[in-house]
Amino acid sequence: MKFLHTADWHIGRQLHGYSLLKEQKYAIKQIIDLALVHKVDAIVIAGDLYDRILPREDAVETLNEIFVDINLKHNIPILAISGNHDSAIRLDMGSSWFKNNNFYLNTKYNRAFDGVVIGDAQFFLLPFFELQQARNYFHDDRILTINWWMKQTVKEIEKHFLPDKRHILVGHFFASGSMRTESETKLEVGGLNAVDLELFKNFDYVALGHLHNPQALQDTKVKYSGSPVKYSLSEIKQNKGVRIIDTSDMSEEFYPITPLHKMIELEGSFKDLTHPAKDLNQDDYYAITLTDEDVIPNVFAHLSQYYPKIINFKRKNGVCVEEFNRNKLDLSLVRKEPLKILEDFFEEITETQMTKTQKQLAQETLSRLMKKET
Amino acid sequence: MKFLHTADWHIGRQLHGYSLLKEQKYAIKQIIDLALVHKVDAIVIAGDLYDRILPREDAVETLNEIFVDINLKHNIPILAISGNHDSAIRLDMGSSWFKNNNFYLNTKYNRAFDGVVIGDAQFFLLPFFELQQARNYFHDDRILTINWWMKQTVKEIEKHFLPDKRHILVGHFFASGSMRTESETKLEVGGLNAVDLELFKNFDYVALGHLHNPQALQDTKVKYSGSPVKYSLSEIKQNKGVRIIDTSDMSEEFYPITPLHKMIELEGSFKDLTHPAKDLNQDDYYAITLTDEDVIPNVFAHLSQYYPKIINFKRKNGVCVEEFNRNKLDLSLVRKEPLKILEDFFEEITETQMTKTQKQLAQETLSRLMKKET
Repeated sequence: MKFLHTADWHIGRQLHGYSLLKEQKYAIKQIIDLALVHKVDAIVIAGDLYDRILPREDAVETLNEIFVDINLKHNIPILAISGNHDSAIRLDMGSSWFKNNNFYLNTKYNRAFDGVVIGDAQFFLLPFFELQQARNYFHDDRILTINWWMKQTVKEIEKHFLPDKRHILVGHFFASGSMRTESETKLEVGGLNAVDLELFKNFDYVALGHLHNPQALQDTKVKYSGSPVKYSLSEIKQNKGVRIIDTSDMSEEFYPITPLHKMIELEGSFKDLTHPAKDLNQDDYYAITLTDEDVIPNVFAHLSQYYPKIINFKRKNGVCVEEFNRNKLDLSLVRKEPLKILEDFFEEITETQMTKTQKQLAQETLSRLMKKET
Repeated sequence: MKFLHTADWHIGRQLHGYSLLKEQKYAIKQIIDLALVHKVDAIVIAGDLYDRILPREDAVETLNEIFVDINLKHNIPILAISGNHDSAIRLDMGSSWFKNNNFYLNTKYNRAFDGVVIGDAQFFLLPFFELQQARNYFHDDRILTINWWMKQTVKEIEKHFLPDKRHILVGHFFASGSMRTESETKLEVGGLNAVDLELFKNFDYVALGHLHNPQALQDTKVKYSGSPVKYSLSEIKQNKGVRIIDTSDMSEEFYPITPLHKMIELEGSFKDLTHPAKDLNQDDYYAITLTDEDVIPNVFAHLSQYYPKIINFKRKNGVCVEEFNRNKLDLSLVRKEPLKILEDFFEEITETQMTKTQKQLAQETLSRLMKKET
């Protein structure tokens, strides 16, 4: 059989305030086309379907439409798991009906051992699990590393191996030896969450999600597919795409995805950059590095006329303090306030809103820090 | 055929801060038992499945479990629509798979005309629609009343009537002549949202949701089922239950639901109420009216020792101003602050949070109002 391996869709993600829904639809349309052209027997999505545990309505609508398209319109089986960005409980809604049409969406640890057989392959769908969730699940506070937990999990999965089948693990975690970029995850403590590749020696293929770079890991059978879209400036040089695996000989091929709008780094003087090339696409995303050292009033507003979607702005050679402060002020118009960032983070982690007292405390602390900075 | 008519589940609803999930599960277990005993061919849920457009994880999990129980475990068809408390888009996730197992969940206006046939009955599932949504949908700003919109909708539905079938409408709206209580809805302007019963003369039964009182409307075939649980003190005297309709002769019977915990009104002196009956159930919900006029320090804290779930507290004969203020202070501990209420309301309606400036403005206005009140 043949399957397509993708991950980290992050539907609903924004890039510096710009919605990426159109980019995501455009990329996933290409994934579906590849699946049809190569006549794959399943699409594997290795976690982080949504970008947030509380996705917006337009994100929910988009993912629903994509699933309908793949599984009901084109009748392609789906094998998917929840990632660290998904709410396992919210994502699970309806999954009991999905499987009647070969759409296997697993968000529960204890369902990872129910292998799903398609053709000559047996898939094990292991959702993202945090260290603390592992401790709670096993009622064992002594679990110190995700690696220990993974070892027990793999041991248990191997008991369910059907002989004469290819054994494929679908997971969402950080594999030892991978390279990271800044956009993948926000919270990562030391090496506690890294998993040794050695554990997977009895699998034929491990389809991973979590890292957005398809080249993050150099291994013959444990692989990240990477995200279908560039989600941060740090991903600018990554070639996005999906993998298609043929289980007859376990051969694997990477197929690139063309972005709807490019991410472009520009470096130059203010004068040069405000006389841009005629074929400049204003829908592309720009990271701009100014070489000038002079004071330029409203520099950001001026540049925005030519590059409406600026995702990064730097002064290569610095600038006098007064100018720097003014630039900071301009930038603040398109960036979130620190308190708002903190509020969003708090809400995402705790699923509750900050109380008035907490907000006050946060605001006071932030003010004190700001004062120190200047 | 026989169908059970229920509505306004409001899964996730709280009563003065107390979670009602256990109450809801207990009530819906009875609904499922009734469906099984009476061997109904379908359960109709006429909107407001959730209490909020952004239900909490435990609410999502609960509703998912209930649906699995009804439709997958017991194989009972479900006919459901979204109400004004649901997010139509979020609720729609997965519905395309549900219908393969006779679970028809409609959240879209243009699907209301696809009649669902079960036995000798044809059901039309009309989700809740606001006046402004109707205007947007028909690109016609001149639509002034929900009644006008309903007239066009019914006309269109009637075109899809199959002869020799009973015709059942499932809807979620305010029918003219109904009695309201305070807990059903927050926004209701004049008579713009009322619908004339006359419109439904060609239907055999109209299964309504929206009003929580099963007796809200006195009509032979247009009926509210009411909510399965009491959701406000104003509902204390309502007999909750469901209706079961037999389409062979369109006979209809009301079956009561027993609450897990009662809602009890108590009136008496502080001395009497702090020597309560021995069979007092501390899990019940109490609305307390004190007859004393004396100053009683920390009255609310004292009463809470006997009645941990107080949902209302009144002084029948008033109290001196100083005492009244202290009581107000005590009550403020269990009640939301006005700004918090406003923030929640804002978030529920707009799906965004108030900005700092908006909050400031709201706080200033509230302070001014408070000053006026005292």
